[in-house]
Amino acid sequence: MRIAILIFDRITALDAVGPYEVLARLPGAEVIFVGKATGVVRTDNRCLGLHVDRALADVPAADILVVPGGFGWRALAEDPEVLAWLRQIHAGARITASVCTGSLLLGSAGLLAGVPATTHWNYLGELARHGAVTTNARIVEHGTFITCAGVSAGIDMALALAARLAGEDVARAIQLGIEYDPAPPFDAGSPTKAPPHIIDAVRARLDARDARESRELPIAANPPPSSPPANP
Amino acid sequence: MRIAILIFDRITALDAVGPYEVLARLPGAEVIFVGKATGVVRTDNRCLGLHVDRALADVPAADILVVPGGFGWRALAEDPEVLAWLRQIHAGARITASVCTGSLLLGSAGLLAGVPATTHWNYLGELARHGAVTTNARIVEHGTFITCAGVSAGIDMALALAARLAGEDVARAIQLGIEYDPAPPFDAGSPTKAPPHIIDAVRARLDARDARESRELPIAANPPPSSPPANP
Repeated sequence: MRIAILIFDRITALDAVGPYEVLARLPGAEVIFVGKATGVVRTDNRCLGLHVDRALADVPAADILVVPGGFGWRALAEDPEVLAWLRQIHAGARITASVCTGSLLLGSAGLLAGVPATTHWNYLGELARHGAVTTNARIVEHGTFITCAGVSAGIDMALALAARLAGEDVARAIQLGIEYDPAPPFDAGSPTKAPPHIIDAVRARLDARDARESRELPIAANPPPSSPPANP
Repeated sequence: MRIAILIFDRITALDAVGPYEVLARLPGAEVIFVGKATGVVRTDNRCLGLHVDRALADVPAADILVVPGGFGWRALAEDPEVLAWLRQIHAGARITASVCTGSLLLGSAGLLAGVPATTHWNYLGELARHGAVTTNARIVEHGTFITCAGVSAGIDMALALAARLAGEDVARAIQLGIEYDPAPPFDAGSPTKAPPHIIDAVRARLDARDARESRELPIAANPPPSSPPANP
């Protein structure tokens, strides 16, 4: 079972590593980290380098596609090669999964029109503008899609997916292996639970960074031959 | 605030990436991934490459030391350079943290004699043999040490540490930023909760891999000039 995880410049590492840590433990799993070009990409804060082992063109198909998020998704949403690859892999995949703003990239590829889906709580409005039927559930399964909320939600999503692919006992064994018996010291992990001043502070920080990312988007050297999917 | 995260061949990625994703969001954080030599190390299952940005000798001090686990800890426990570096960084650090079997590496460096500490549930007995006062609590804080349970526990540990370093509101904002409102689909993340046949299966798999790792340990090319800390 080939599991392709897309990684890219300015990714949020846990978006990718959470699902990887679960899915790589599935019997028969072959996890491949795929990106624009082989070599090291840096995370959103530039602190960590992750290695792209295979270029997009070298991975023409996969059983499971995992699309993480991170501020870098905006640059990829302008990249016709990446969008075409997502459409191609999704067309043949058993499951197309996303974590956090990874669903915005799936939306940018035109894959989520009319599809129930979710993303990081701060980006639900933007996801809706891609035509997805948004919900703030932590995990949303619909057909071959499974999308989930921000960053850490990828662990929960991957365990649900593991159960679907290999049965509940396998998923439970993986959960025990990674000792996932969560005990956060605070109950502030969702905008339905965090105090308003915390929500405002996080939103302000995210929006400021997003504005900077949008300004810094490179002008495409090779504009796509036809119009890319609308991204209003 | 310099945060040094040790990474190494056959690391468990989430052990490092969980705490990183939390601690990198602390105001003034400078996170550095440190290892034996700069370049890419591969994770325990060989599926993912993480980039070592700085060699041990180039990081003579840090405010926070984070030691992740993974099967590769056994090879490092035979490596005098690594053990000396751990002792050196710990001596000047405000906090020495470990995730999963990272505490066994701290123990191998002789740092945990008489210290309350924990590790992945399958390795508590081995940790006790290093002189630590073991407990199966998810997070154990004692003086400048903070150790935690297996793999995913590093997220909880790092949030507790974030609160200690920067206050509860900062920790809550980080928790909301990574949308850490965990909802595992099963309640099997601890040996106190998982069914016995699941515990037996996971233990058998871990023990088999450990036995293989022990057989594959390289003979040290340069034995240490003096006796390393006892590792019975």
